[in-house]
Amino acid sequence: MKKYFTYPILIFFLVLPFCTVANEGMWQPGQLPQIKSQLSEAGLELNPDALTNLTDFPMGAIVSLGGCSASFVSDQGLVITNHHCVVRSIQHNSTTDNNLLEQGFVAKNHSEELPAAPGSKILVTESVIDVTDQVLTNLSSEMDGQARYEQIESNTKNLIQNCESNESFRCSVVKFHGGLSYFLFKQLHIRDVRLVHVPSKSVGKYGGDIDNWMWPRHTGDYAFYRAYVGPDGKPADYHEDNQPYQPSHHLKTNPNGVKENDYIMLMGYPGLTNRYRTASEIKHTFNHIYPLTIDLMGSLVSVIEANSAPDSEARVKYQSLLAGLLNYEKNRKLMVDSYQKGTTQQRKDALDRNLREWVAADPKRHSEFGASIDHLDQLIKQHQTMDVRDILLRYMTFSSMIDSAIELHRLAVESTKPDEQREMGFQERDLRDIKQRMLRISGEYDSHVDQAILMVLLERYAELPEAQRLPSIDGFFGIEKVYSAKDLSKKLQKMYEKTKLHDEDIRLGWIGKTLSDFESSKDPFIQFAVQSFADRIKLENQEKERTGLLSVARPVYMKAIIAYNESQGQAIYADANGTLRLTYGHVTGYQPKDGLIAQPFTTLQGVLEKYTGVWPFNAPQSLLDLIENQTYGDYVAEEIQSVPVNFLGNLDITGGNSGSATLNSKAELVGLVFDGVSESIIGNWDYDAEFNRSIHVDIRYILWVMKYLYQAEHLIKEMDLIN
Amino acid sequence: MKKYFTYPILIFFLVLPFCTVANEGMWQPGQLPQIKSQLSEAGLELNPDALTNLTDFPMGAIVSLGGCSASFVSDQGLVITNHHCVVRSIQHNSTTDNNLLEQGFVAKNHSEELPAAPGSKILVTESVIDVTDQVLTNLSSEMDGQARYEQIESNTKNLIQNCESNESFRCSVVKFHGGLSYFLFKQLHIRDVRLVHVPSKSVGKYGGDIDNWMWPRHTGDYAFYRAYVGPDGKPADYHEDNQPYQPSHHLKTNPNGVKENDYIMLMGYPGLTNRYRTASEIKHTFNHIYPLTIDLMGSLVSVIEANSAPDSEARVKYQSLLAGLLNYEKNRKLMVDSYQKGTTQQRKDALDRNLREWVAADPKRHSEFGASIDHLDQLIKQHQTMDVRDILLRYMTFSSMIDSAIELHRLAVESTKPDEQREMGFQERDLRDIKQRMLRISGEYDSHVDQAILMVLLERYAELPEAQRLPSIDGFFGIEKVYSAKDLSKKLQKMYEKTKLHDEDIRLGWIGKTLSDFESSKDPFIQFAVQSFADRIKLENQEKERTGLLSVARPVYMKAIIAYNESQGQAIYADANGTLRLTYGHVTGYQPKDGLIAQPFTTLQGVLEKYTGVWPFNAPQSLLDLIENQTYGDYVAEEIQSVPVNFLGNLDITGGNSGSATLNSKAELVGLVFDGVSESIIGNWDYDAEFNRSIHVDIRYILWVMKYLYQAEHLIKEMDLIN
Repeated sequence: MKKYFTYPILIFFLVLPFCTVANEGMWQPGQLPQIKSQLSEAGLELNPDALTNLTDFPMGAIVSLGGCSASFVSDQGLVITNHHCVVRSIQHNSTTDNNLLEQGFVAKNHSEELPAAPGSKILVTESVIDVTDQVLTNLSSEMDGQARYEQIESNTKNLIQNCESNESFRCSVVKFHGGLSYFLFKQLHIRDVRLVHVPSKSVGKYGGDIDNWMWPRHTGDYAFYRAYVGPDGKPADYHEDNQPYQPSHHLKTNPNGVKENDYIMLMGYPGLTNRYRTASEIKHTFNHIYPLTIDLMGSLVSVIEANSAPDSEARVKYQSLLAGLLNYEKNRKLMVDSYQKGTTQQRKDALDRNLREWVAADPKRHSEFGASIDHLDQLIKQHQTMDVRDILLRYMTFSSMIDSAIELHRLAVESTKPDEQREMGFQERDLRDIKQRMLRISGEYDSHVDQAILMVLLERYAELPEAQRLPSIDGFFGIEKVYSAKDLSKKLQKMYEKTKLHDEDIRLGWIGKTLSDFESSKDPFIQFAVQSFADRIKLENQEKERTGLLSVARPVYMKAIIAYNESQGQAIYADANGTLRLTYGHVTGYQPKDGLIAQPFTTLQGVLEKYTGVWPFNAPQSLLDLIENQTYGDYVAEEIQSVPVNFLGNLDITGGNSGSATLNSKAELVGLVFDGVSESIIGNWDYDAEFNRSIHVDIRYILWVMKYLYQAEHLIKEMDLIN
Repeated sequence: MKKYFTYPILIFFLVLPFCTVANEGMWQPGQLPQIKSQLSEAGLELNPDALTNLTDFPMGAIVSLGGCSASFVSDQGLVITNHHCVVRSIQHNSTTDNNLLEQGFVAKNHSEELPAAPGSKILVTESVIDVTDQVLTNLSSEMDGQARYEQIESNTKNLIQNCESNESFRCSVVKFHGGLSYFLFKQLHIRDVRLVHVPSKSVGKYGGDIDNWMWPRHTGDYAFYRAYVGPDGKPADYHEDNQPYQPSHHLKTNPNGVKENDYIMLMGYPGLTNRYRTASEIKHTFNHIYPLTIDLMGSLVSVIEANSAPDSEARVKYQSLLAGLLNYEKNRKLMVDSYQKGTTQQRKDALDRNLREWVAADPKRHSEFGASIDHLDQLIKQHQTMDVRDILLRYMTFSSMIDSAIELHRLAVESTKPDEQREMGFQERDLRDIKQRMLRISGEYDSHVDQAILMVLLERYAELPEAQRLPSIDGFFGIEKVYSAKDLSKKLQKMYEKTKLHDEDIRLGWIGKTLSDFESSKDPFIQFAVQSFADRIKLENQEKERTGLLSVARPVYMKAIIAYNESQGQAIYADANGTLRLTYGHVTGYQPKDGLIAQPFTTLQGVLEKYTGVWPFNAPQSLLDLIENQTYGDYVAEEIQSVPVNFLGNLDITGGNSGSATLNSKAELVGLVFDGVSESIIGNWDYDAEFNRSIHVDIRYILWVMKYLYQAEHLIKEMDLIN
């Protein structure tokens, strides 16, 4: 069971299906030679070929934080990303007395830099290799779905194991086009990450959730990390002897920014798009899954807020989760709104029809694609009845006690097997991550809140038809036809009183224990994990069976789509999947509504306009004074007679792109992307060139805040400024 | 006691104090020679002198509906105004089976035209005479406030009586500059008004209260009345033998509309502005009066909604009041928001200081103005403690039973005096209006709702300190230190069971009865009126005393303001007071926020964009089809490739201007003003040229809807179209 938040759900965007228009597309570096002429026509002043090589400039300067993107901006491992990508690290270093979220932070020198939150990492992609043949070896058409799934997983694990020659590197095998091809990514895994500078959240998250996905925008969403390595230059755990990492490449910064209609591009790690889903998948998602998740997110927000007083220690611990939930809920609401108002479903229906007609029109095409497309439809429908149950079970891991018990127990189960046969996520290579997740819980857990979360989810679970529920869970919690919320509440109360899993040492102590240790444990959450395991593994195997069958049907469907589009003269890029991509376009406003024009730049004056003194519109007094006094320094843009704060672009981005460096036609840093406008949220499924706008924080605002608000001129000096 | 709604509170706007900038100003026709050159420079293509004569073109075509403005647009008495100005007449002709609000209405010929709501009128201003000397005659400095008030009222009544030579005319004496001058207005009073054509509210009020004061806007806020007179050509009550009135002048209609930056102007009857109030009056209003009224309006809306099911007969009856309350509440909220965010108070404080310093700096000025300014301050402060009580008493007349009982009883009281000594509003000349108000109640009353309204107001009243309450009201309702809401509720229940005042015949029957008839009545509401009369008259006399004293102090203050402004080289126009004014400016967008531009025109496509199928975004299907099919006819504007729906101007308007014809540089009809943007609502007190924008419905949209949606080509033909 995985939490829904695979990519920090802090941004969620767009792109279109089946037909490629200007600015659309998240291109793999290897694809760039195909779109060379478009890039040059759009205004790129470098040779497009220079962008294809991962270890050259500028690709070599682009890194992943695992969920966010970032870039090296100095030869001393200084990394720039979004404020919202480092919130966990800010929280990790904050106390009620010294709240860095409220005050911001700037290290005057290396020794003042603070360790990032446990598990923070900087990943530098070193190589990408097509491993489709290796992943799809030893398969036969007689295999059932689960066997197929397990063989693919086994092949994948072998590839990863061979790739991860030492602990400096992390490797992953990523599926493209639903399994039509697979690539092996090898990334340098820098583990000592330190917080260098962040503005206060009243700058870095100015406008808060109210302004999220909105334009006009006035958010200084930037932050600096530094990568550290051991004295030998290799990745190492945090140690005071560690030294700043010296990247082979870093971005130069252009303090003059960009103007309207200028070419811009960005490279980063977009998380997930679904632009090639079938019409029925989209229908089900928007009519059932999203309404349910919106409802659940809302319940969780209410329950967390009701059980933690504002500014209390408990609330601080749940700040990051709350922000994520609110963001996700708003995202899904906006998406459903767009879906209901727009024509996405009609167009997807039409495309589906056209594809099927095109396939049916030709016997050869029919024999190649027909059966798989029908089978895909069937697989998709089969599972939809169980979606509510599965979502509820997944959401139960929002309870840290449930989550850690299940994860620790599963580790013990997997540890009984040879390493290469273990489930991915529970191999030797994963122990560090597991340990860090277990550590992180200490800063993000309150028993009272955790219990309330579990209660609300179990109450929803209890409403499911009996056939959908799991006997072991029903039995454990005493859920029957007529169940008593009061009794359930008492049961939970006892569990939370008795459990020791909230104790960091005890929790960590479970790592490495044997299965029989778990089975004889008196800890109620461990008992829950043990008793429900058989039922859960049954579901997991059903899911594997389905995934295995999908891994046959989906690639054929994608092959059909690609062939159909080729027949229409259209090129295809792959859905976002967390791997390095380039997108390009221009600085440009748009018309959000009839009668209204969104201008491409906002100004310092807009910060004043929105100011109320109350979060999220509580800009610091010093910033207000600087604006009132028109202290613009070198950062004024003549066209707007002010310092530009944010700007609009038409780049094709999605969650995971947060923190990506916005580059000009010479690949110089001119800003950071941090959001998209609400009209483009549906773009995760469907693309509209008219409304698709990315929101960037302007490099001039970043430098202005650094210089005048935080006296961070030593960092500006460290950055490689043009001119 | 008067209800707050003296002017239909459907629009509320702006203008500035103490300094005149382009486009600011509600100019009396007689003042136009002073601003001749500005008018021509702005783009007026007529001789400005032509605008000064009330009985010439175009002023002769401009009429008042008493609360709204309107214009003759044919030689057969056809009148154009806003949809929201005729809602009462639409309701009056609607039944649940035949709801004209939902369906719209177009009379195919004169015989199908429907009588407007009782009390509807068309007022044509025939003359305006300065009567300051006559109003201020027979006054002495020894008089107390009340004596002074009564002498002025007596002088006023004499002037009116002499003016109203026959019942074709209504005259009024109106105060300018707080009493510095008075003018006598003589108006032809057309009493037979008929509904000719209205679009459905899904067109005429598209966007409803959600879009009220908002831009972008897509509202077809227009309607047509026709004026009828007796066979002798004189105003007459409704009669089937009546004939269309033939006005001496009517507006020609220009179906080509206007473009961005074109000169526009409008003439109409703006209701009320307060641009010359003292800083302390503004402070009190925004910090006490408005928050209280917002609260009360909200309570009344809740209580009406809770006591009338949607679409029930009761709800239909209260639709107009509900709309007014919601509109008013939103208006006041937006105004308070602007006040809190903006610098109005600081600027008013500064102006007040400057004025006082300027007065103090010169002994002559000090002796002329000093004492009166101090006295004005004192008078203003004196009364502020009683404001809550007075507002609550005034609001009690939202109960039709309380209102009619008080009004009928007062009529009997006044009828014991010779006509010329009676209170204004209760003279022979007012009998028709009183009768019509009594008639109107039948269509706007539900006993259950009325009782709930009274209950909520009495509960608030009961919370007042005892010293502020009236013994007779306390006694009547049994309100004591510890009062019981339950008992009060029972008392009201009995009153509503017993009263016969809701019966139209009985209600009308009270007109003309003697004071002793009232005193011996067993009707509980009549008893309330009788028993509380002495207390209420005491308050009224206190108010007269204060008004009398203000009528000395305020004109001197205004004289000081005018002199001070003259010393700064600034001209002054009078606050709006329901009299005919001209305002001019241009078609122009604005920047509502940093990063956002409001374009001057909206298009048909915007109607589609907002469409949800649910009120207030439920445009008729036929209209959607016309837009989808791009059936634009002759009404397309090339610049926007669509039919323009609404446009923005920078005209200086306020409530009462609703329905005013928007004219081009040749005084041809190009639209109707119907609202202002939210940023300019504070303009009722304070003016900002940057944000002050009027919202107009484009003549091309009106004609397009008439032709394609309502097949009203006979009306288009009747209108005097250019080309």
